[in-house]
Amino acid sequence: MTDFRKQALDYHALPTPGKISIELTKPAETSKDLALAYSPGVAEPVRAIAENPDDVYKYTAKGNLVAVISNGTAILGLGNLGPMASKPVMEGKALLFKRFAGLDAIDIEVTHRTTQDFINTVANIADSFGGVNLEDIKAPECFEIEQALIARCEVPIFHDDQHGTAIVTAAGLLNALEIQGKRLPKAKIVCLGAGAAAIACMELLIKCGAQRENIYMLDSKGVIHTRREDLNEYKALFANNTDKRTLQEVITEADVFVGVSGPNLLSPDDLKLMAENPIVFACSNPDPEIKPEIALAARDDLIMATGRSDYPNQVNNVLCFPFIFRGALDVRAKAINDEMKLAAVEAIRQLAKEPVPAEVLQAAGVDKLEFGAQYIIPKPMDPRLRTRVSKAVAIAAVSSGAARIDLPKNYMAES
Amino acid sequence: MTDFRKQALDYHALPTPGKISIELTKPAETSKDLALAYSPGVAEPVRAIAENPDDVYKYTAKGNLVAVISNGTAILGLGNLGPMASKPVMEGKALLFKRFAGLDAIDIEVTHRTTQDFINTVANIADSFGGVNLEDIKAPECFEIEQALIARCEVPIFHDDQHGTAIVTAAGLLNALEIQGKRLPKAKIVCLGAGAAAIACMELLIKCGAQRENIYMLDSKGVIHTRREDLNEYKALFANNTDKRTLQEVITEADVFVGVSGPNLLSPDDLKLMAENPIVFACSNPDPEIKPEIALAARDDLIMATGRSDYPNQVNNVLCFPFIFRGALDVRAKAINDEMKLAAVEAIRQLAKEPVPAEVLQAAGVDKLEFGAQYIIPKPMDPRLRTRVSKAVAIAAVSSGAARIDLPKNYMAES
Repeated sequence: MTDFRKQALDYHALPTPGKISIELTKPAETSKDLALAYSPGVAEPVRAIAENPDDVYKYTAKGNLVAVISNGTAILGLGNLGPMASKPVMEGKALLFKRFAGLDAIDIEVTHRTTQDFINTVANIADSFGGVNLEDIKAPECFEIEQALIARCEVPIFHDDQHGTAIVTAAGLLNALEIQGKRLPKAKIVCLGAGAAAIACMELLIKCGAQRENIYMLDSKGVIHTRREDLNEYKALFANNTDKRTLQEVITEADVFVGVSGPNLLSPDDLKLMAENPIVFACSNPDPEIKPEIALAARDDLIMATGRSDYPNQVNNVLCFPFIFRGALDVRAKAINDEMKLAAVEAIRQLAKEPVPAEVLQAAGVDKLEFGAQYIIPKPMDPRLRTRVSKAVAIAAVSSGAARIDLPKNYMAES
Repeated sequence: MTDFRKQALDYHALPTPGKISIELTKPAETSKDLALAYSPGVAEPVRAIAENPDDVYKYTAKGNLVAVISNGTAILGLGNLGPMASKPVMEGKALLFKRFAGLDAIDIEVTHRTTQDFINTVANIADSFGGVNLEDIKAPECFEIEQALIARCEVPIFHDDQHGTAIVTAAGLLNALEIQGKRLPKAKIVCLGAGAAAIACMELLIKCGAQRENIYMLDSKGVIHTRREDLNEYKALFANNTDKRTLQEVITEADVFVGVSGPNLLSPDDLKLMAENPIVFACSNPDPEIKPEIALAARDDLIMATGRSDYPNQVNNVLCFPFIFRGALDVRAKAINDEMKLAAVEAIRQLAKEPVPAEVLQAAGVDKLEFGAQYIIPKPMDPRLRTRVSKAVAIAAVSSGAARIDLPKNYMAES
């Protein structure tokens, strides 16, 4: 066993199994404490909530509580290993929610027969939480699941593999385009991969101004085009009316390559076919579609991003999901709508243009970070993400009508 | 608003809403920490669990985690107020699990259409936890729900309103009978109430030696007898082949009265009809079927218990449920079976016969507690409950075949 493998297993096993616990936020020592916390005192908040349902936010932990829910059908890059094997990942997500946004998050792994059965289960428990973060659910079922849950639930439902990835990718891409002197409405985009993240990324880019006919999506069978008869309804939205069939054909003169597929699927020769000043997001994890050192050797006019922390420009969902939930929950949003997602894109994007505090440089182990080809997206450890992204999302929730309450006073004011 | 009401609401609202939070048990500060907790390190425990399902207990919080699940159809004595109104109670239960047994517990409130829908929802999420505590679910649905979940789930399912109450009642009653010089197989028992707690109490007493034909159960329509045609299948088990129709008729010469009904339903005159040295468990909360001062004025040969903390002999589920789960989870029990319940009865019962430590006297605000009419059950604040009851339950789980692993070494050794 490698040293890192052993460290990772030990981290999870010692001194107690797992990564999260449930703790008390109120005194519970004396009989008096317990008379307030449980019988007979607890009858008071029960009656209050029965009379005024919104009081559940006043007297219970719901308003700060996120469920991280999976069925384990698409765990990381490891595939369908079942609900129990997904538990360490879901606990890890809960850990990130707490670490970055101070949200209480609990993981729930669902065993189910049909997709409808999963939907029904999650819908039936969703009200227990301030919001539900879906995770590691395979495509195409994830689309149907998310849509059905959004329609049924009164709390925000957010499939992070789709929208978290899409938001961070869009933020980085918009900055990269700006640096390369390109505009999204004219950009020719190649998307290698046609799963949950790929489809969500392209849909969000279209909302940011990309033209659907400029997008060439490829699955394992090649280019997704209008003559294909094997497409599910989600891929079909990206069927391009083109004669081109191969990656090499579509990448020729492309401005943007987005890879959410697998390791080493993009060659230096492919890269040389792209337009001037190209942009490559090679997000396959842990091994990107092309290694940055190889890509940059082939094209010195390139802006490159990956999912890895050991290269510049890491596309990492943690830039988004803790704060999109923080903002949504703080105004008791009923949903996470497009306005809120776009507000998150803009907030992340703008933060990369600001001077970087010393503590962030230190955490990143670099001397300097300045908006440009080597720094198009903020670092995960940037503490300003919490205030900026959460606030932008909360404001968008209020202005778009998704919020149930107004912004708290001095919300996310920076000192 | 009374002072206590205000205190109870403030306790729940301030400084933050609710009573529980989710906290991290592992470091999550540096990039290295996060690489172990989440990507890429988390892939290691994922792979381990996929290969060996039992590793979920090694690498995740599951083994110490209890779900407290309700649909809010029978909240405390307040009735069917819906899932959201039950949330403070369920969080309160989570607080008690942590406070008394160190178990992590999270509340889940289920919105559902049919009983089958509730069952399916809970069954689909049950594996996320080490065990499931059902709470405040109305009869008769609670019986069907619990039975179906026990059949479907691989983790312990325990409806505390039924079995927690039954276990503590049985422990107290056996001690009271001993003090009064009576034996359960010959005791004539009147049970006022025919809900979840009543039926579970009587079923457990039968397992302890009571004779079904000596039990007279009454619902709102009077004595449950063999000529009644309005009985559900659970009440029907207690249909007594008798001509007696009223409480007064059946309580005449009764040895034991168990009340799980409502306030002031037992009069001093009723009490005077009972046999010599009678036993009255008036467990309606907060107002018992008869007040102890009234009862003891009518009969000085009486042993009396209530659900209240301000009288001697409090029948309180907290004597049982934290420890029955503690013991069950510590040996990864598949279920909480009769052997384990009876072991809990015996452990609670025996503890009342032992000398009481000074700290317990102090917490109870009394100078002396000695096994007898005024002290038939341990006090909730008795720290020995945790070691004694958990250990008895764990041993019974192992010997009855419910446990998946052996008792940990030196399990619950007392210093």
